[in-house]
Amino acid sequence: MALIVQKFGGTSVADVARIQNVARRVVRTHEAGNQVAVVVSAMAGETNSLVALAKQVGGDHPDPREYDALTSIGESKTIALLAMAIQRLGHRARSFTGTQMGMLTDQAFTRARIQSIDTERIRSVLHDGAIAVLAGFQGVDENGNVTTLGRGGSDTSAVAVAAALEADVCEIYTDVDGVYTTDPNLVPAARKLARISFEEMLEMASLGAKVLQIRSVKFAMQFGVPVHVRSSFDDSEGTWVVREEDVVERLVVSGVTYNRNEAKIRVVGVKDSPGVAAKLFGPIADAGIVVDMIVQNAAGDGTTDMTFTVPRDDFARAKAIAEKIAPEVGASHVEADKAIAKVSVVGLGMKDHAGVAAQMFRVLADERINIQMIGTSEIKISVVVEEKYTELAVRALHAAFVEAGGEPPRSEA
Amino acid sequence: MALIVQKFGGTSVADVARIQNVARRVVRTHEAGNQVAVVVSAMAGETNSLVALAKQVGGDHPDPREYDALTSIGESKTIALLAMAIQRLGHRARSFTGTQMGMLTDQAFTRARIQSIDTERIRSVLHDGAIAVLAGFQGVDENGNVTTLGRGGSDTSAVAVAAALEADVCEIYTDVDGVYTTDPNLVPAARKLARISFEEMLEMASLGAKVLQIRSVKFAMQFGVPVHVRSSFDDSEGTWVVREEDVVERLVVSGVTYNRNEAKIRVVGVKDSPGVAAKLFGPIADAGIVVDMIVQNAAGDGTTDMTFTVPRDDFARAKAIAEKIAPEVGASHVEADKAIAKVSVVGLGMKDHAGVAAQMFRVLADERINIQMIGTSEIKISVVVEEKYTELAVRALHAAFVEAGGEPPRSEA
Repeated sequence: MALIVQKFGGTSVADVARIQNVARRVVRTHEAGNQVAVVVSAMAGETNSLVALAKQVGGDHPDPREYDALTSIGESKTIALLAMAIQRLGHRARSFTGTQMGMLTDQAFTRARIQSIDTERIRSVLHDGAIAVLAGFQGVDENGNVTTLGRGGSDTSAVAVAAALEADVCEIYTDVDGVYTTDPNLVPAARKLARISFEEMLEMASLGAKVLQIRSVKFAMQFGVPVHVRSSFDDSEGTWVVREEDVVERLVVSGVTYNRNEAKIRVVGVKDSPGVAAKLFGPIADAGIVVDMIVQNAAGDGTTDMTFTVPRDDFARAKAIAEKIAPEVGASHVEADKAIAKVSVVGLGMKDHAGVAAQMFRVLADERINIQMIGTSEIKISVVVEEKYTELAVRALHAAFVEAGGEPPRSEA
Repeated sequence: MALIVQKFGGTSVADVARIQNVARRVVRTHEAGNQVAVVVSAMAGETNSLVALAKQVGGDHPDPREYDALTSIGESKTIALLAMAIQRLGHRARSFTGTQMGMLTDQAFTRARIQSIDTERIRSVLHDGAIAVLAGFQGVDENGNVTTLGRGGSDTSAVAVAAALEADVCEIYTDVDGVYTTDPNLVPAARKLARISFEEMLEMASLGAKVLQIRSVKFAMQFGVPVHVRSSFDDSEGTWVVREEDVVERLVVSGVTYNRNEAKIRVVGVKDSPGVAAKLFGPIADAGIVVDMIVQNAAGDGTTDMTFTVPRDDFARAKAIAEKIAPEVGASHVEADKAIAKVSVVGLGMKDHAGVAAQMFRVLADERINIQMIGTSEIKISVVVEEKYTELAVRALHAAFVEAGGEPPRSEA
């Protein structure tokens, strides 16, 4: 008998018929002899309409405590309905709000962090042979105020519950059936990965493969919770996100991802001296803008160019800040470009195999795609290219690294 | 500085504009130098649609715990929105669910009884100069399960909060501006009562003057909470419901009420012996049917007729039961009539003044209205008449007892 945590998102519980589907799925798992705790989001659209109400009544900056009290309601509705649907199938079920399950968080309303879960009540329900139905997204602070974990927080709730219950697996049901080597809409040859490491998943998620909320992956990694991302529409195996040592097939490149939601800013001819970077990026950080890639190339003439990328939504503000700072750091001018894309290859195997970067550059050169920026981490290489080359770059890299069998061009391992 | 509890029902908070109206009203009371705790219902229609969802998913008998978890959500939504609306007006406010305010009830889901309120958190908010916004209808049992107080429970919540906080007044805002001597739609001369006793209000409410939920009146009477029923549309004084000794103007008759929602069943020629009434009314009570009036007239020939009224919805079932029992109690047959109305006069003054009943019968006789049944209590006389005479009877009695100045025909006091 396993203890299984299942998580269903908003589209999986969008209406009564889908809630009944989820109930059947949960019951099937229970009837197979498992203990089941199920975490659900608000019915699709609910939270958005509560947010709209909050803005209508509370203005652009509604009180965070009341905002969380309001926006957490959707989940309270789903859990009661799902518990009823399960009961209708002849099984016992009991719903728990964040407060009722003791999902203790800090007081950071709208983006609260989980501190602990009082699992005693959930355990006793499971021990009793019933199914626990838990509200995602909701928490409670030490004073009994309702908090929320921020968008996508239900994934984090599920992983946290799985960690606290020491569950055998945390199953995340989504509208895709797993994690793919790249976007199947772009590359028909994309294939589903059987297993992927937490580290790779983090790089994939943050790069735009929106299968799993990034915070939940960190949580799962921290507590070693095996996560199974799978389809809510069929019973096929999805993708297991597991510890590095549990990834059997160590692909050099497990995924090719892309992100068209960034923009590039280049501060040209900056005086190459200590403290310059701080002068530039301090004000940008103060403005709440998250900088992604940063590249600096010293010219040898005592000046350097500093190039960085920011989310497109923050482009105008970031550019204005850069232009204001430019004279202070001796820069000649600022160049800015929104029409870019970041394309990355991700893979645990890079740790052991050299030459991935070289091959990546060669593949892109063969397609006559110019590389504007390069950034690397231990298991990821990212390049910035002109936006119009996005699809071409992704297809060429997927063909070279994944479809060719994942063998490295040369191995030093 | 007074401590005022204000309660607004579903129609008063039906949409954003009305919630903002309520916020202004609450703020006005606060700015006048009072401490204010405001109790609200769900936005009109919300609870009904949650109930419909519960039936759709949970069937005709959804699990009571989950049913309460679901149907209590409407109030959670209103409190957060009202708190935001108050904050938008520059005042501080804090919302409380039933759980957060420690509205402890028994475990009788869907019709829970309040046991205690942990007022410490509310008091500290009020003491702090902020406005407390409280969910009506919701409670919590000792295990943290959400309970609900049943339909109209928000009135009870408000009175219970007022009692626990030892408030100076519990203001109930409704779409009428007070308690009238009779239905103004029927009798244009109906006038608003300045004060009425709890006891009279109980008789009025149970007789169909649906201004205040009957359980809340009992609560108010038990704890001596002055209740002010007033309009949510203007600032005029409404009707104060107070202790008998605080009713200054002791009218012989303060109200004429009617109820067309009953039906009459007569079991004819019952053997006049002990235990017969129990044989008849036992099975009716077992069927969950609430009998209102019961009249028994011994004929002197060893038989008696037993006549009673039941809600019209239960008429068919009650008649079937009576017909089944009839032979067992030696009755000759059962007569049944749906086309009846109960008309009552209510007034504290009856305690001291005889002759009210006699005058009532004379007024009805003058209009050629035949009386089918008579029932009396200390401060109420009810008669059953043919339904078509309802308006005529009410108008005639109102003219005789209220418009004539409320002087009794003769006084023994």
